[in-house]
Amino acid sequence: MTEPVGRLITLEGVEGAGKSTLAEKIAERYREAGREVVRAREPGGTGLGEAIRAAVLDPAHGPVSPWSELFLMLAARAQLVQELVEPALAAGRIVLLDRYADASTAYQGGGRRLGIERVRALNRLATGGRMPDRTLLLDLDPEVGRARQGADPDRLEREDLSFHRRVREAYLELASLEPERFVVLDARRPPEELAGQAWKALQALESGVD
Amino acid sequence: MTEPVGRLITLEGVEGAGKSTLAEKIAERYREAGREVVRAREPGGTGLGEAIRAAVLDPAHGPVSPWSELFLMLAARAQLVQELVEPALAAGRIVLLDRYADASTAYQGGGRRLGIERVRALNRLATGGRMPDRTLLLDLDPEVGRARQGADPDRLEREDLSFHRRVREAYLELASLEPERFVVLDARRPPEELAGQAWKALQALESGVD
Repeated sequence: MTEPVGRLITLEGVEGAGKSTLAEKIAERYREAGREVVRAREPGGTGLGEAIRAAVLDPAHGPVSPWSELFLMLAARAQLVQELVEPALAAGRIVLLDRYADASTAYQGGGRRLGIERVRALNRLATGGRMPDRTLLLDLDPEVGRARQGADPDRLEREDLSFHRRVREAYLELASLEPERFVVLDARRPPEELAGQAWKALQALESGVD
Repeated sequence: MTEPVGRLITLEGVEGAGKSTLAEKIAERYREAGREVVRAREPGGTGLGEAIRAAVLDPAHGPVSPWSELFLMLAARAQLVQELVEPALAAGRIVLLDRYADASTAYQGGGRRLGIERVRALNRLATGGRMPDRTLLLDLDPEVGRARQGADPDRLEREDLSFHRRVREAYLELASLEPERFVVLDARRPPEELAGQAWKALQALESGVD
């Protein structure tokens, strides 16, 4: 019997697209298939990362500099890769992340207009070059996403629609740059259908390599 | 009468070199000369920055990734420049900072070996290119600095002597690259003498420009 190969799977998309629900269903299927699954969210997933999350999403901190926001996301990511992602992959686990490098490229590079290429270069420093094996992008019109979001939006959720439209466009641009890695899903479809589509794409990943 | 010109003065040096004492004395002299003074420390100086400071210096967070540490410092700096430094300079104030961009270059670029040139480039993004008018570098053998430090050292203070030696060397290298900006002071001298030397250098700044 061969050792299980570690996989990094990331979930991306605008607020309210249904990433948590999809992550739950994917984790379940992987566990049913006998795989060990580690889940985390970004920013967060480590002690330091959660402290960063609390700081960056707190509406009380007022107007946060776009560069400050980006560097905080990169800081949380660098810690997550060192502390959680690399050890779990080395142990042959499935790592499911709710947001990762592409989120900074879309939110800060696109949404905040810091530049997509510049943020990609900074991501390479923060991640040590660790990129996802597959990225599930839940694509959704931001107006639909907004209607789905909770009663107590955080600082990023409070941004206006034009910001969230730039985020969506950046995500779609990234997907077109790396069609092998990205699986673009229509987030308006029922959760079970989305899980089925995602699972099919993830199984193709295994059959192609193992 | 001409409007007062804003000045950014930074204090740098290894732990225990006496930056706070010198900042206090310099602030006093500026105030006696009729100038408005704003003081802050890095990381910190803003609501977001103090939250970052607490996160990055907390020994409970265990082994922090070097890149994470650097990005946190850059995040605090970007916020400080936007929220405090630029408005104060525009209002003609003297801004006295206990650590700034050079600290990242010395601590993370030199101490953590992330690369001096790379950190300088990232500093340019974080600061929007705002560099100090003068930098007072309190140079001190790290062994002497260690003996001076308090009973409850933070995570960076706990690093070993070879780390602090690399920090000191990086600071001296930066000073040699920009001899016009840096005023290198021998931190073993008495506080009053240091304040006198620093004040002389800062007055030269005014007489040369105003």
